[in-house]
Amino acid sequence: MRASNLYAPTLRNTPAEAEIVSHQLMYRAGMIRKVAGGMYTFLPLGWRVIRKIEQIIREEMDAAGGQEVCMPILQPSELWEESGRWAAYGDEMMRIKDRHSRDFCLGPTHEEMITDLVRDEVRSYKQLPLMLYQIQDKFRDERRPRFGLMRSREFIMKDLYSFDKDVEGMNESYRKMYDAYTKIFTRMGLEFRPVEADNGAIGGGHSHEFTVLADAGESNIAYCTSCDYAASDEKAELKPLDIPAEEELPLEKVSTPGTNTIESLCEYLHVSADQTIKAVAYQTDKDELVLAFVRGDHEVNEVKVINQIEGALDLRMADEDAIRAAGGCPGFMGPIGLKKGTHVLVDATVMKMHNAVTGANEADAHFRQVNPERDFDRGAVVVADLRMVSEGDPCPHCGAPLKMTRGIEAGQVFTLGTKYSQAMGAVFLDENGKEQPLVMGCYGIGVGRTMAAAIEQNNDEQGIIWPRAIAPFEVVIVAVNAKKDDQLAYAEGVYEECRQAGMDVLLDDRRERAGVKFKDCDLIGYPVRVVIGPKAVDEGVIEVKVRRTGEVYTFHREEYLSKVQELLKTL
Amino acid sequence: MRASNLYAPTLRNTPAEAEIVSHQLMYRAGMIRKVAGGMYTFLPLGWRVIRKIEQIIREEMDAAGGQEVCMPILQPSELWEESGRWAAYGDEMMRIKDRHSRDFCLGPTHEEMITDLVRDEVRSYKQLPLMLYQIQDKFRDERRPRFGLMRSREFIMKDLYSFDKDVEGMNESYRKMYDAYTKIFTRMGLEFRPVEADNGAIGGGHSHEFTVLADAGESNIAYCTSCDYAASDEKAELKPLDIPAEEELPLEKVSTPGTNTIESLCEYLHVSADQTIKAVAYQTDKDELVLAFVRGDHEVNEVKVINQIEGALDLRMADEDAIRAAGGCPGFMGPIGLKKGTHVLVDATVMKMHNAVTGANEADAHFRQVNPERDFDRGAVVVADLRMVSEGDPCPHCGAPLKMTRGIEAGQVFTLGTKYSQAMGAVFLDENGKEQPLVMGCYGIGVGRTMAAAIEQNNDEQGIIWPRAIAPFEVVIVAVNAKKDDQLAYAEGVYEECRQAGMDVLLDDRRERAGVKFKDCDLIGYPVRVVIGPKAVDEGVIEVKVRRTGEVYTFHREEYLSKVQELLKTL
Repeated sequence: MRASNLYAPTLRNTPAEAEIVSHQLMYRAGMIRKVAGGMYTFLPLGWRVIRKIEQIIREEMDAAGGQEVCMPILQPSELWEESGRWAAYGDEMMRIKDRHSRDFCLGPTHEEMITDLVRDEVRSYKQLPLMLYQIQDKFRDERRPRFGLMRSREFIMKDLYSFDKDVEGMNESYRKMYDAYTKIFTRMGLEFRPVEADNGAIGGGHSHEFTVLADAGESNIAYCTSCDYAASDEKAELKPLDIPAEEELPLEKVSTPGTNTIESLCEYLHVSADQTIKAVAYQTDKDELVLAFVRGDHEVNEVKVINQIEGALDLRMADEDAIRAAGGCPGFMGPIGLKKGTHVLVDATVMKMHNAVTGANEADAHFRQVNPERDFDRGAVVVADLRMVSEGDPCPHCGAPLKMTRGIEAGQVFTLGTKYSQAMGAVFLDENGKEQPLVMGCYGIGVGRTMAAAIEQNNDEQGIIWPRAIAPFEVVIVAVNAKKDDQLAYAEGVYEECRQAGMDVLLDDRRERAGVKFKDCDLIGYPVRVVIGPKAVDEGVIEVKVRRTGEVYTFHREEYLSKVQELLKTL
Repeated sequence: MRASNLYAPTLRNTPAEAEIVSHQLMYRAGMIRKVAGGMYTFLPLGWRVIRKIEQIIREEMDAAGGQEVCMPILQPSELWEESGRWAAYGDEMMRIKDRHSRDFCLGPTHEEMITDLVRDEVRSYKQLPLMLYQIQDKFRDERRPRFGLMRSREFIMKDLYSFDKDVEGMNESYRKMYDAYTKIFTRMGLEFRPVEADNGAIGGGHSHEFTVLADAGESNIAYCTSCDYAASDEKAELKPLDIPAEEELPLEKVSTPGTNTIESLCEYLHVSADQTIKAVAYQTDKDELVLAFVRGDHEVNEVKVINQIEGALDLRMADEDAIRAAGGCPGFMGPIGLKKGTHVLVDATVMKMHNAVTGANEADAHFRQVNPERDFDRGAVVVADLRMVSEGDPCPHCGAPLKMTRGIEAGQVFTLGTKYSQAMGAVFLDENGKEQPLVMGCYGIGVGRTMAAAIEQNNDEQGIIWPRAIAPFEVVIVAVNAKKDDQLAYAEGVYEECRQAGMDVLLDDRRERAGVKFKDCDLIGYPVRVVIGPKAVDEGVIEVKVRRTGEVYTFHREEYLSKVQELLKTL
């Protein structure tokens, strides 16, 4: 490809709405253009990146036993009625009627479609396991689409669905996909973590998010510096902290006027936050009161709280009336003396505390010298891991200190179990001739999101720094002054040699100033730049620059090709 | 790939709704499944075919200078308002509102989107010519989707748009695309004709349909047996027929009671139809009366009639009142004696007739011995090519007799001129610094439709006969009895050899009866079948069958690989 024919309009300026660097750089480098909020056109360079990402995904899906199919974007509402999601899915689902007033949606995901596809034709355990996938546009009408390809309304996704005869089979498929995802993100040259995730509303069982590390990420991740444990902050397990033993003093109620925050309480009683017990009061979507207690210097993890209350889907802060009805007092809550039947959840670390301070469930009063194992009614409280991870917490696997980082969820693997197969009657006959529901998993990768994440992780002041595997071109040959026939001819020779050596190469033959071309090279982020100037023509000396390191090499014509190939292997 | 893992559910029966052979065979061969009317899922085998077709298209688009992009499926109504097509496009356009009640459509085509994309960034003639394309889902809400992939509502299309600085440039781009299309359909191994087409409402200028010849086709094509002329029946040009000279007898009015059809007239006057002049009376969408005259044995081509009337978009049969108001008489119309100002169109062949019969514009009366050049008011009639082609008509280029055939329009190339660029303000600065609208063309290929057309053209009682280039697999290796370890091992060895020789090969290792497997091979239509049975194991004799010819060869193990490669080259 020649840059003189390439449609890649680069820009100096960034549109105001581009808030994050990947959006800014894709725009400036002429890779995407906005059509409407959350809808983008991929220009040739951007599309080359997408196709390379797709191809890596495809190869690894095939290698793992996946078979590529393609389902329609339009999905009949009837299928979603069967799973119960037509009503449950909110405004994010884009709905449309055809000319006969039949309801369809623009697929936000394809569980119903794939279950419908196999339910009539997978009849025997002999046809299992089965893994089908597609790479295709999905639609979610985000309330506030933003961040370019990171949160768009029309986006490309690879979605694979696995079908097994039992849970062991499902777990085996899950492991295959986990391994395939690991290969995919490794091949793309990205730094990532498979992160244990809470799989929220989508289904039960395991889930990992494949998270590309980057400061602009929306996910907070805790990862171990010593073993390979990693988890989203919402999911990260924490063992109770070890707290040195202490002589247990007798429980004592003290007057603590106006100390309805941990800070004011510590000041008033001259104690540190880690000697106090903090309360957070919630109400569930079914209006049940839930009181959660963690150490004063810790934070409550609401996902862990929800997981303790059967049937709860959502939490909100509790009303004062509800608190009082349970025998509590807002601002002065404690686990001692609440009415029977109240959900009282206590973080496991709290149970290890000695001589702590907690609210006395009356205004302006606290207990001190609280010793939870001695003083709490163990029949009335649930002890569990309730707290939010923070940097330095011990790894639940090996005990080494956890680090916190931010990342972008680019892929996710889920076990679905029989949620859809049962709802939709997708059954097979097992070895004993008995009807069983298919046991499913689903596995997604956001293709555009992966592109954005790659840029978030790999950029500098000048522009993008592509990992070689997903660069729009691996190598750019720049004819410094393309108006000079000898330079252009030399550059064309080098271009042909690189092409014939199997490189994915662009010839920048534009009759622009060298500075403009170099700036574009850095902005677009080709991994290797080969410069053909007078020195090449006169002396056979070729300058090669590596985008990532900024290192510049000079090679003789006889050796440059093998040298460039060696450099590429490292990028 | 191994058939034991392949998801390709084949069926004995055809669904009732599958009216044509391609639909039936794709369904039975496990290539597609219906989701809703005109919406299909591609199963793995079908998707392999689609991807091969796409890849051939992509390579030829790139070779011709096209650059691949990808535009959103959702298109904001504002762009269609600019071109005037938001209102003009009827129920075929699927419309949707987002959560903010903003109007979008599901793209039926992308002229507006591509024009919007380039209008801000193509500023100079130096950026031209430019050709951008995509391969993507399109949506048209057909009133009556049918024939499987032939007329579906969600379908895959390649659409390329060319931008040039002038009409010569546009014509050059058109020629490049014409040549690329010729290569594409040739590479796919299809018998096709580039057919001159009427490009109807889409825009002015040239148009060719790339038509795959097949009996189930919806297009009627006239093609020359001697030169490469081909045209749709609506478009086929016809030169006036040579009619031997004759002594011109005087015009004479005769009573012809009740002869308001050509048939009754011929019988009454003892003449043949080719001695009569037939009239057809139309009214345009603007209610103008149009009288068209052709020889009695010819048919009127309404497209040609419309093209003669400036501003007319549509024709309907004329009311009797309108005919009488123009001085005519229904059933007894003739060009002589009509009121001034009536559109009177006469086919050029009529002008060559001698001593013909025509209506006298009064009930039960005709003129005979009509000699048009002598008797018609040449100032009041328009002479043009008005007639519909039929088999045996002379080729307008070389005069050899035309043949008629049916075909499936799989691709179309159009010149658009400045229709969209003017409406949407897509301008550039020419060599003189003057603002000019971009001169455009558009070029589509229906990918799924091409797959269907290939099957329509290549099938027999047993199933599909794929041309090698677009077969789901080129070669299938059948282990006759896969339960026998020695046969399976032998087949696996052959499979590996074929793979390593670069063939696209499937191993049918299913533990099914040989008959079932052979039937599936014929149904799915792999070009070459390699059979590994006891003879292979015992004597090293390998049976090879060519699907298209049915020919069976036996090769020794040492030679089979090169022989199969030779056979593949012919398929």
